[in-house]
This record gives sequence, C-alpha cells and structure tokens, in this order.
Amino acid sequence: MKLSKRALEMNFSPIRKLIPLADAAEAKGIKVYKLNIGQPNVVTPDSFFEGLHNYKEKIVKYSHSQGIPQLLESFAKSYQKMGINVKEEDLLITQGGSEAIMFVLMAICNEGDNILIPEPFYSNYTSFCQFAGAEVVPIETTIETSFHLPSKEKIESLITDKTRAIMLSNPVNPTGTVYTKDEIEMIAQIAKEKDIYIIADEVYRQFVYDDIPYTSFMQLDDVKDRVILVDSISKHYSACGARIGLIASKNKELMSCIMKFSQARLCVSTIEQHAASNLINTMDNYLEDVRIKYQNRRDLLFSYLNRIPGVVCYKPHGAFYAFAKLPIDNAEKFAKWLLTDYSYENQTLLLAPGPGFYQSEGKGENEVRFSFCTSVDDIENSMIILRRALEEYNRIER
Amino acid sequence: MKLSKRALEMNFSPIRKLIPLADAAEAKGIKVYKLNIGQPNVVTPDSFFEGLHNYKEKIVKYSHSQGIPQLLESFAKSYQKMGINVKEEDLLITQGGSEAIMFVLMAICNEGDNILIPEPFYSNYTSFCQFAGAEVVPIETTIETSFHLPSKEKIESLITDKTRAIMLSNPVNPTGTVYTKDEIEMIAQIAKEKDIYIIADEVYRQFVYDDIPYTSFMQLDDVKDRVILVDSISKHYSACGARIGLIASKNKELMSCIMKFSQARLCVSTIEQHAASNLINTMDNYLEDVRIKYQNRRDLLFSYLNRIPGVVCYKPHGAFYAFAKLPIDNAEKFAKWLLTDYSYENQTLLLAPGPGFYQSEGKGENEVRFSFCTSVDDIENSMIILRRALEEYNRIER
Repeated sequence: MKLSKRALEMNFSPIRKLIPLADAAEAKGIKVYKLNIGQPNVVTPDSFFEGLHNYKEKIVKYSHSQGIPQLLESFAKSYQKMGINVKEEDLLITQGGSEAIMFVLMAICNEGDNILIPEPFYSNYTSFCQFAGAEVVPIETTIETSFHLPSKEKIESLITDKTRAIMLSNPVNPTGTVYTKDEIEMIAQIAKEKDIYIIADEVYRQFVYDDIPYTSFMQLDDVKDRVILVDSISKHYSACGARIGLIASKNKELMSCIMKFSQARLCVSTIEQHAASNLINTMDNYLEDVRIKYQNRRDLLFSYLNRIPGVVCYKPHGAFYAFAKLPIDNAEKFAKWLLTDYSYENQTLLLAPGPGFYQSEGKGENEVRFSFCTSVDDIENSMIILRRALEEYNRIER
Repeated sequence: MKLSKRALEMNFSPIRKLIPLADAAEAKGIKVYKLNIGQPNVVTPDSFFEGLHNYKEKIVKYSHSQGIPQLLESFAKSYQKMGINVKEEDLLITQGGSEAIMFVLMAICNEGDNILIPEPFYSNYTSFCQFAGAEVVPIETTIETSFHLPSKEKIESLITDKTRAIMLSNPVNPTGTVYTKDEIEMIAQIAKEKDIYIIADEVYRQFVYDDIPYTSFMQLDDVKDRVILVDSISKHYSACGARIGLIASKNKELMSCIMKFSQARLCVSTIEQHAASNLINTMDNYLEDVRIKYQNRRDLLFSYLNRIPGVVCYKPHGAFYAFAKLPIDNAEKFAKWLLTDYSYENQTLLLAPGPGFYQSEGKGENEVRFSFCTSVDDIENSMIILRRALEEYNRIER
C-alpha cells in the first residue's frame, strides 16, 4: 500500500521533534527550560473562562460553518477599533491560524504552484504548502540586515507564472522583525503588478515594541481584493489550545470558495467560539499589560545574549522570539547535546535550531530561535545555562 | 488572480445549501421542520459539561498533537470493552471525523488517485477527496437491494492501479444500511487481493437496531495493517459541536505520516478534549437509552412513510437516516418548493435531496434523506405535512 508524496515528504515539526529527548532528560531528573515553543506563560483572560462557563445549552450542536454570529461580530468590532474596515461578511472562523493558512493555500494553489515566503519562516508554512501541493520559494533575508526584505527587483525576480502569492508573517516568526510601511507598500506594489495574492499572517500584530509603527496589509485600500489576513486568538490572548483562528478578506469569490471548504468540515468548536467571543468583547488592559511584559522580557533576553561572547543577535521589535547566531558549528547538534549530554546545576535547555526555519539547504546552521514568552525567572536561568553550555561545548569540540 | 481547481470544483454542502431558503421561510413566520441534518435533539451527557467545567488550568495551552493522554486512554478502553484491541499508540485525536477523513486521504492519495465508495454516500466525502486531489469512484447500490453491496466481481472490476482505498460508512449515512459480516469480509478480501486500504467510517456504530449483528473492520485480524478506522463523539454522544474525532490504525507507517499532519496543525482544542475524556469515561446507560429512542423514532418515521401512497422506503437498521423514493419528478425542485411555495398550517419541511448523495449524474432524483434524530413530535408533524405536500405538489405539477 502506498503513502502519498506529501505524507512521505513532509517533515516532523522541527520545533516539536526534540521533545522526546527533553522528556528523557526530565526523566533523569533534569530541569529543562523550554525556549523552543511559542507557548506563553501569561494567563488566559478570565473572560475566556467566563464565556466557557456561561455556555448554557443542553446540546453541543453544530454551529454555522462561517463561525457563530457573536464571534464574527466581536472580531469585526475589534478590527474596526484598530481602523481596519472589515464587516462580519468578510470573516470566516477557523480551527486556529493553522486551518486558516491551510484553507487559503488550498483555495489558491494547484499542484506545482508556488508561494514566496521571506526566509527564515515559521516551519509549518512548508507543511501547509505541501497539503495544497504547492512549493515554497524563499525570499532571502539575513541577520545582518535585521531580517528586513531585499529590494523589489530581487523579490520580483523570483516570481514566475506558477507564483500564486507572497505569504509573510508580520511581526515575523521566528525573527521578531516588524516590516516598515515602505516594505508593506513594496509588497503590495509587487502583488498588484504581478497579479498575485498577499497572505498576511498577523497573529503577533499586538506585540510590537519600542513605539515602532505597525502597518497591516488590511489598511491598504488599493490591494484590498488581494489581501488575505490570517489571525488567531492563540498568541494575543494566550489561548493557544482554544484553536480559534480567522480568515479576513474583501475578495468575495475567494471567501466563497473557502466557505465551501468550511462546510466540508462542518464547523469550529461551538463552545470555544462562545468563549472566544466573550474574550474579545471584554478586553481592555490585558493586551497592553502583556505587551509591556514581553517588551521587558525581550530586553532581558537581549541583554544576556548580547553579552555572551560570540553571540550575534538582532534586537527583535515584535512577536516574542529572538533569532541569534551562536558560536557553534551546528545548532541541531548543539540542541541535542544540551538534552543528552549536558546539564548545569541539573538544568538544561530545549532550543529550536535555526535550520528548521529555513528551506534553503545549509542555512541557519549556527542559528537558534529563542522564545521569550516564558517567565523572567526562566529567561534568567536559561541564559546563565546557555553561557556555561557554550563554553563547555566549545571546549569539548575544539 | 486564480483560484485552485479544487476550490472551483468543490460544491457547497447539498445538506446545508437550502438553509437560506429555510431562513427566508422562517422570516415569513413559517415553522420549518429540519429533517435535512444529522443534528440529534437528545441532550449531550452531563459528564461532558462536567469535564468542561472541571478544567482548572489558568492557561489554555497547546496540547500534544496526537491528543491528550487521558482522552487517548478513554478511547482505548472503550474500544477494548467492545472487543477491539487498540492501544493508545494506535490512536490519534482529530478535529471531528471530518479532519480524520481528510488526513487519511491526504496521507494515501496523490493527485489523480481514486477512492471506491458505495453510492449513495455522505456528500462531504467528495470534498475530502478533492482536498487530497483524489477522485471518487462510486460502487452502485440501490434501494431495491436495501443498499447492500454488489458482488465481489463487480467491485473488483472498478479497481485500477490508481485506486488507493475502499471507503465506507457502516452503518451507512445516508441509507441506514448495516453491512453483514459477509460483506465486511468480502471488502477485506478485496482489499487484501488488490493491496489497498480500507477506510472504515464507523461514527454511527452504536446505533444498530433490531438485534442486527455488527461487525467492525477493526475486528478482522488479517487486514489490521490496512484498516483505518474513523470515529467521532459527535453522533454517539450528541456532541457534534465539540469537534472531537479520531483515527485508529495498526499501520504504524501510516500513523506516523498522519502524525506529521497533526503536528502541522499543532493540536485539537485542549478543553474539548478534557470534556470528551470525562464523557467517555462515565457513560453507561446513556448510549442504550439513545439507541432505544432512535429505534422507536425510526419505527414511527417508517410507519408514516410506508403509508404515504407512492413512497418506497427501505427500513434502515442503523444510523438515524431513512432514504426514500418519493412520488415526485425532482427532489431538489420539490425541496425548494416546500420552502418557497408551500406551507401546511403555517409549517413546512427542510429535506436533503437525493442527488446530493450521488456522484453519478441523474441518480437519486426522486430520492430524499430523512433524519430521525429529531423529536417524535417533529417526526409526527413532518410526516403529516409531507403527505399533504406530496398531494399538493403532484396536483399542481400534473
């Protein structure tokens, strides 16, 4: 019996694949600091749980495939508050941002089409493209230019008649880069000239620091038919396990196709939608408090990294990740070694090695993504361990 | 900008597409009995809500991509009770049975492959195949033989080197047919000889009436590497909106590939999994009570249908659907007419027209699927309306 091409070619999540080694380390009694995953340690707002407990129906029924009206309304209002003009009819609730991206790619890609993505990128983008039969064409960005975009000409030179969209996260996972208004407008210009879609993954939009101005693709009027926004409550409200995401677009033909996909899978969890709706309706100080926390955690992590000899780190202006070059030969080897052969005062680290965020062969080999949505205590301890570990690793290796 | 082939070719759910007309009828003050959809009116067990309210974590975190250990254990135990030997490692939790089928097809089908399915079949099967780039090859069954399977030779004659699996629901949605042990063994024999998978959608397994013996594909030892079970709590526990489904298989290579898909979408709703786990752990009389209710509702519906002149109905032995031939020219036209032009004592019906369950052109044109998971009152009223409506429709049409 055969397995499909996509099944054989897809990789296990590079962010999750070291977990068995971490489990083994923990089984030996070693404390493992998990800087590999974007699982915030801040509490989910009470309003989510209130929404959950206020669900009083006796039957957990199917809900509308587009999403429940209350949640659509809550999202629409929250966008309008941010100056983004979307109505309920422009929205579709999905099972997390994951299903949102999968549906969008399924709707615009045939077998053999391709999607341009600035590299490094969120590793599951590759899997979502594989679901749709599409290929990733990486747009090169480097730590030396703070992972900002290359020139218009360089990006345009990558576009063929098989290119369906430019997909990008902003702020960027894994680098924390926040694109400038000029960059956003450049992408819009390219999309118009080449007649392709823009898939804007803005799930970290609320986490932008240092008063950097933020431009959403949804604010650009002249590309509103080609912008597809992907959003989620996971990161903004520390509700990753709720699996509530969203697609927003003014392109009615596209949204109608995605509605067919949504009907095929019937609906998103009814109760989680109720909880999410209550959550979005009642948020005020929460997001600001969390943003302030993350900004200060970022500072703490950056101070530490910056003072470790040989580390090159760009100070991230958004999201909750830092992407750094370490003084090592091979990040995957180093990450495994940390779990299997190293501990400092009975503690070690679980890191996300750089190559997992690159499609291009041989890139990111001495890079690592650090999550700073964990506690300041954990950041402090992790950085002390990292400094010692790098010394030891290089002593042994040389 | 282009849309994909699958996006353009996929149909809106034939079960859901008449809903706007039903909404319009309701807006005119007409009571609409919804016999189109498999949304049970029986209450979800309290244990589900208890599980929900007992979730005491402060952060709604990502959970394991395979599913939370408690839920895997609950499912494994419940299968073992039924004499099906599966362990936690053979299971993977999905976002409803829908995601389960989608993942399975994605794992075994390349563009242009095909899947054999007895026809009539659950209409979303076509959509799931389109997601994977596969085609449906229908196996003809007819009301005259109670929708049982044709001969081994006939089925084998449909298999080509592009055929990856035989997929079937048992009990069958939309006909309520329960396959005999001989039929199950015949399918197993074909799958072995032709080296293909069996996708066994058993989401109605608990609803088998009249002491008909039930055979699960998971009970057959000699095909255990090629059987893929799809299950869900939706119908069994009237928890359709919870979106908790499952894939079970002893084929480790296949399950490992599906695990990669699961990691790409991160996890299934954490809290719903907790609730589902509590639900499965604490069920005793519930399923039996519901089965007795459905059996009696089936009898009531069947008595009515059988006494309407010109109606041909096979008495279903499982699930909660009856598939009947009506004395009409065109089921889609009749279903629309019921909503736009007809009412009896200010009431009318929403039906699921037969063609939606067929891929073969021109089939099912005078057939309709009736759901009997609604109340006995609704069944009684609906049947009174149907009898009058048929008289009126045929008076006008002639």
